[in-house]
Amino acid sequence: MSEARLKSALAQQASKTLNTLTTEQKNEALLLMADALITEQASILDANMADLQRGRQNGTSESLLDRIALTESRIAGIAEGLRQIVELPDPVGLIQESFDRPNGLRIEKISVPLGVIGIIYEARPNVTVDAAGLCLKTGNAVVLRGGSAALSSNSRIVEVLREALSRSALPADSLQLIEDPSRASVDEMLKLNGLLDVIIPRGGASLIRNVVENATVPVIETGAGICHTFVDESADPSMASDIAFNAKVQRPSVCNSMETLLVHERFAREHLAAIADRMQAAKVELRGCEATRALIPNAKQATNEDYATEYNDYILNIKVVGTLDEAIAHIGEYGTKHSECIVTENPSHASRFLQAIDAAAVYHNASTRFTDGFEFGFGAEIGISTQKLHARGPMGLPALTSTKYRVYGSGQIRG
Amino acid sequence: MSEARLKSALAQQASKTLNTLTTEQKNEALLLMADALITEQASILDANMADLQRGRQNGTSESLLDRIALTESRIAGIAEGLRQIVELPDPVGLIQESFDRPNGLRIEKISVPLGVIGIIYEARPNVTVDAAGLCLKTGNAVVLRGGSAALSSNSRIVEVLREALSRSALPADSLQLIEDPSRASVDEMLKLNGLLDVIIPRGGASLIRNVVENATVPVIETGAGICHTFVDESADPSMASDIAFNAKVQRPSVCNSMETLLVHERFAREHLAAIADRMQAAKVELRGCEATRALIPNAKQATNEDYATEYNDYILNIKVVGTLDEAIAHIGEYGTKHSECIVTENPSHASRFLQAIDAAAVYHNASTRFTDGFEFGFGAEIGISTQKLHARGPMGLPALTSTKYRVYGSGQIRG
Repeated sequence: MSEARLKSALAQQASKTLNTLTTEQKNEALLLMADALITEQASILDANMADLQRGRQNGTSESLLDRIALTESRIAGIAEGLRQIVELPDPVGLIQESFDRPNGLRIEKISVPLGVIGIIYEARPNVTVDAAGLCLKTGNAVVLRGGSAALSSNSRIVEVLREALSRSALPADSLQLIEDPSRASVDEMLKLNGLLDVIIPRGGASLIRNVVENATVPVIETGAGICHTFVDESADPSMASDIAFNAKVQRPSVCNSMETLLVHERFAREHLAAIADRMQAAKVELRGCEATRALIPNAKQATNEDYATEYNDYILNIKVVGTLDEAIAHIGEYGTKHSECIVTENPSHASRFLQAIDAAAVYHNASTRFTDGFEFGFGAEIGISTQKLHARGPMGLPALTSTKYRVYGSGQIRG
Repeated sequence: MSEARLKSALAQQASKTLNTLTTEQKNEALLLMADALITEQASILDANMADLQRGRQNGTSESLLDRIALTESRIAGIAEGLRQIVELPDPVGLIQESFDRPNGLRIEKISVPLGVIGIIYEARPNVTVDAAGLCLKTGNAVVLRGGSAALSSNSRIVEVLREALSRSALPADSLQLIEDPSRASVDEMLKLNGLLDVIIPRGGASLIRNVVENATVPVIETGAGICHTFVDESADPSMASDIAFNAKVQRPSVCNSMETLLVHERFAREHLAAIADRMQAAKVELRGCEATRALIPNAKQATNEDYATEYNDYILNIKVVGTLDEAIAHIGEYGTKHSECIVTENPSHASRFLQAIDAAAVYHNASTRFTDGFEFGFGAEIGISTQKLHARGPMGLPALTSTKYRVYGSGQIRG
């Protein structure tokens, strides 16, 4: 039996126990896990050093190495993340609906764990701990398949966490790490129907596309974000500049940052140059349509391919539009249904934009950077769903549950 | 462009209008559709006759022909189904949550249509109308791909319904029928990411498996049901007999009927023979384990393959078990997570069964046949989900919606 199948089967078996545990038992396990990360940090840092050395030998980029790197303070932050999950309400066992039928049947809809969650992700070892914590808190077993660049770190972290679990009411097998670094182990996970209940990919566009295209296990798609800010004719100039600047520059590498600024032509004539100056002063490369380049001569020409690209970088497309409808149509064509913003003082334009745009989160006069579990007040998130089934937007703990109908009778049969 | 892609693109376009309509506009369209089915019934019956004649020439089974066959009274029933959908509350536009963040952002979670729903189904032409009604009521466009055996009926019905839509506020393109009877049109639908938001298969196990294994569009899996009834030691004998008989015999062809009866050995010794007699008197073929055959000598030997088969027929497996845990383990191995029942007078056994069994609906002292949208009080259903994501169990109108976060700011940016 392959590693992926074996470990998923062990996780499936463990999930039957997880399903019966109390919130207190789960929280206790999370606290033991947090403590163990601190107690065992020396060995985790050693393992992380091995990843970093191997990465340097292989010519891994400095930015990727930085994402892999752990320090005492990063480990402390990761452990603190687990303790924050303890504080979140447990969504499992909640009776969502309860009703009586005329024939005397009482029906309850109760939230239950999903079962076994597969997480396929890239380099950052903090995802290993976050994902484990969120899944276990919701009574789910978890099968992790992290990127090979952080394999030593992830292996040691999971060893430490499983050892902590073995001192708790949760089976150590609730947490599994697939260590086979080959693509074959991912391909196999994608088809483990019956052992995995859902797969959540976390990472770049190509990782997510591979999962969506090849999985037969149900998937929650996350992450890809080509987000727009539309600055309407009536926008407050200083608010528009602040929101656009924040959406682009505050952290360009993340999915809810802005890739394309749409500007109403009348606003553009008076105020676009100032916004462009501010962007360029922050080293943002500008790519514009013809009308933009007429106003900002040093912007490059934007192509349709640019509009369809998630840069996650200091690059911004700018397009001047004649109407609200033109902005809505552009977003309909190039958006990824993640986060979209209108800056306007016109309430009916705001209302129409928020209604017509099909996205997980639509904003009036606020930066798209707020699409985030913590910013929404949900606490840690397992990802940001960009699909429409099951969960949409930042996924807090309830997104990791399913439901079950419990039906109580006294001998009812169907006539 | 292929028929499937073209019609899905038209549906996607129409969904942008649907999304903006009021409940009244949608209800008016449904009523026009219901009226049109009655007004145009002669031509629908003619088309249906063509299907039946072609079926007879091709040697189609009488039971399938019966499922395809329409009559005036069946058409009246189908039209009445649309009128009932009008009466159901519209789940779209419901503000599910609304909260303010410390930074002044107001966040609303609002229910929205899924967008475009693809339905792949088999013979019965009533599904064409039901599915159209449920999808349109929830503001979704719908792309139907019915079985070729009912193609003439479905084509005429959709023509009639689209003509009715053209007299309503809803675009006629909200409703599409793929008429290409080849497997290629199904295969293509399964990959139309970006045009279809979800695919719901309705039909037999092989149709559903094909969709689940090959779709890259998100799927809601429905229908396969290997359902069990466990009669515990303490069960009331007459209640147990009534529930088991109802679960098997009331309508064996449907997914929530019972395939395997599990019986505690002490109950079996005294009461299994009487239940078996009642089943056999109703022409149910019995297949049993060794212990069953010791009590009911004319039962055939049940194999593991039998336990894994959804008969949808007058055949029943019987297995004698020594403990509640053995029953739970059998269901864990062979169940399809649809509907499972325990008959017992022991409350702690009931509670343990309802907790441990992982299924859409778990019953104490009532027939599994109640897993049904109407029986649960939801009204017409688009199917019974046997997966854990998005919707589980009977899917009423809310299962055909997604959500969107609307965020209202006054210039907030992220620090």
